[in-house]
Amino acid sequence: MDFLKDFTEKINGEIMGYLPENEPAKLYEAVKYLPAAGGKRLRPIMAMLACEAAGGNGENAIPFGIALEITHTFTLIHDDIMDRDEERRGMPAVHKKFGEATAILAGDALFAKAFEIATGTDASPEVVKTLVRNLAVMSREICEGQQMDMGFEEADEVAEEEFLLMIEKKTAKMFEHAAMGGAIISGAGREKQEALQNYGRNVGMAFQIWDDCLDVIGKGIGKPVGSDIREGKKTLIFIHAMRESAEKERLAELYGKEDMTDDELDEVMDMLKRSNSLDYAKEMALRFSETARKNLEKLEEGRAREMLEEIARFAVEREK
Amino acid sequence: MDFLKDFTEKINGEIMGYLPENEPAKLYEAVKYLPAAGGKRLRPIMAMLACEAAGGNGENAIPFGIALEITHTFTLIHDDIMDRDEERRGMPAVHKKFGEATAILAGDALFAKAFEIATGTDASPEVVKTLVRNLAVMSREICEGQQMDMGFEEADEVAEEEFLLMIEKKTAKMFEHAAMGGAIISGAGREKQEALQNYGRNVGMAFQIWDDCLDVIGKGIGKPVGSDIREGKKTLIFIHAMRESAEKERLAELYGKEDMTDDELDEVMDMLKRSNSLDYAKEMALRFSETARKNLEKLEEGRAREMLEEIARFAVEREK
Repeated sequence: MDFLKDFTEKINGEIMGYLPENEPAKLYEAVKYLPAAGGKRLRPIMAMLACEAAGGNGENAIPFGIALEITHTFTLIHDDIMDRDEERRGMPAVHKKFGEATAILAGDALFAKAFEIATGTDASPEVVKTLVRNLAVMSREICEGQQMDMGFEEADEVAEEEFLLMIEKKTAKMFEHAAMGGAIISGAGREKQEALQNYGRNVGMAFQIWDDCLDVIGKGIGKPVGSDIREGKKTLIFIHAMRESAEKERLAELYGKEDMTDDELDEVMDMLKRSNSLDYAKEMALRFSETARKNLEKLEEGRAREMLEEIARFAVEREK
Repeated sequence: MDFLKDFTEKINGEIMGYLPENEPAKLYEAVKYLPAAGGKRLRPIMAMLACEAAGGNGENAIPFGIALEITHTFTLIHDDIMDRDEERRGMPAVHKKFGEATAILAGDALFAKAFEIATGTDASPEVVKTLVRNLAVMSREICEGQQMDMGFEEADEVAEEEFLLMIEKKTAKMFEHAAMGGAIISGAGREKQEALQNYGRNVGMAFQIWDDCLDVIGKGIGKPVGSDIREGKKTLIFIHAMRESAEKERLAELYGKEDMTDDELDEVMDMLKRSNSLDYAKEMALRFSETARKNLEKLEEGRAREMLEEIARFAVEREK
């Protein structure tokens, strides 16, 4: 996956050029704070590779990919306010660093900027119009996903179907539009557009479910373990366990318990494994990754397609 | 101004059609709550009339005008959170009614919807691309204006120039883009576009400054009086008085004072009148209104142009 590192650096080199130095200084410091902190930049990379794999010039899809990445950043800033999360990427969250009012505004300004960047795509006005419309609809769906996610916190039970719809809206849609956007910009026909749309959505689903798995797989790999369990987050793993586990009552008692001890955390993790809930989620993530790769078969073979395949594999093999 | 009432009803009849019934229900209740509460709808009306006055079919500019109105609504929702305002249009603010998290999301969803609506404009893709880009840049400038406004609260002194730049960004830009957008959609050339752009911006400036005047003119007219004074808001009137008044010290002492008595409020209002600060602001509002009307001379005479003239007059004659 060395190519990913190179592409990440490439995108990081470009992204700050889209965020102007401007007045009022406090607003623009807040606007640039999180984009400057880096990230994998998978959305722009996927847009670029999808464009190339569909027969276009990948460079042309980078601005749209960056528009998606900036939209992603805006949702992180607002989500952290809503979820009262105080840290992001090992730094104070934007609202902790700049205050809540400026954080709300910085998110709004980034969202506006995303549309500005999307209109700068080097493509026909007809294509630009389609991209902007897709970006707008997608953004509204992300809001729906976040509202569902917040609703789950208060719900006694969450159906698996509802959970999958939530992560589709909140996470997978952005990958879907990265890959489909690349295909649209390439000028490819409906079949390739749909193949890449499906590819992106399935990668996004795999990514999110694998992320939840990492929380339980734990120890020895990069991610801090058990934070979903401590917070009582209704992940696919938990939803499965509450349906299938023989230890439901004990699980419900401990999951999300305030001041959970390390022993209790271990007990929960063991229960999630004994009920095969971790395996269930892992297998589902693998299936999404496989479906993603199957969709690529409709594209010409070549380096871009191979790299997209590797990204789909990376989604369920990464350790952080 | 009877035509305004008719047009307001017309727009009110259309605007809810753009806001879908959708899931999650809580999000969409919050999304529709403020748009359903009505308003003057001056932005869509201005877009429609500007389009017609520039030689186009006014109906074609209504979706873009509604996109601006929805953007305006989104900014009100987020501003109320930032400013800790608990009421809006005589009802609990969105964040009081639905909670802050859902209010942030409802604003975001409305903002996304504005772009979706703008892409539905019945015009060439090239025109749509221009409109969307303008909407994006304008929205970012509104964020800049709000950040400036928040900065003024903490500042000891605000220069008149800074104040005027703030209201230009926060308020006048939206009127500017309503009128210019109408011109762009009409297909009119650069000269008419610029005339309507200047018209809109000047109406917006007149509107905002007149709004501040109404806070002091007081008694007997619709608006609750003195709320800017009680909150210590740095209006043009206050900025002028702190420069010109012979009673600066007493004014600084009382302005924005906690638990201000009615007598103290009267004293402040008298000081603002004695220093001619109210008159100064009134005259400036009148000048902006006049400049707006002068710009209309570049358009064909006719009913649409007359109505735009009336709106410019209304901006500085209205009593609420």
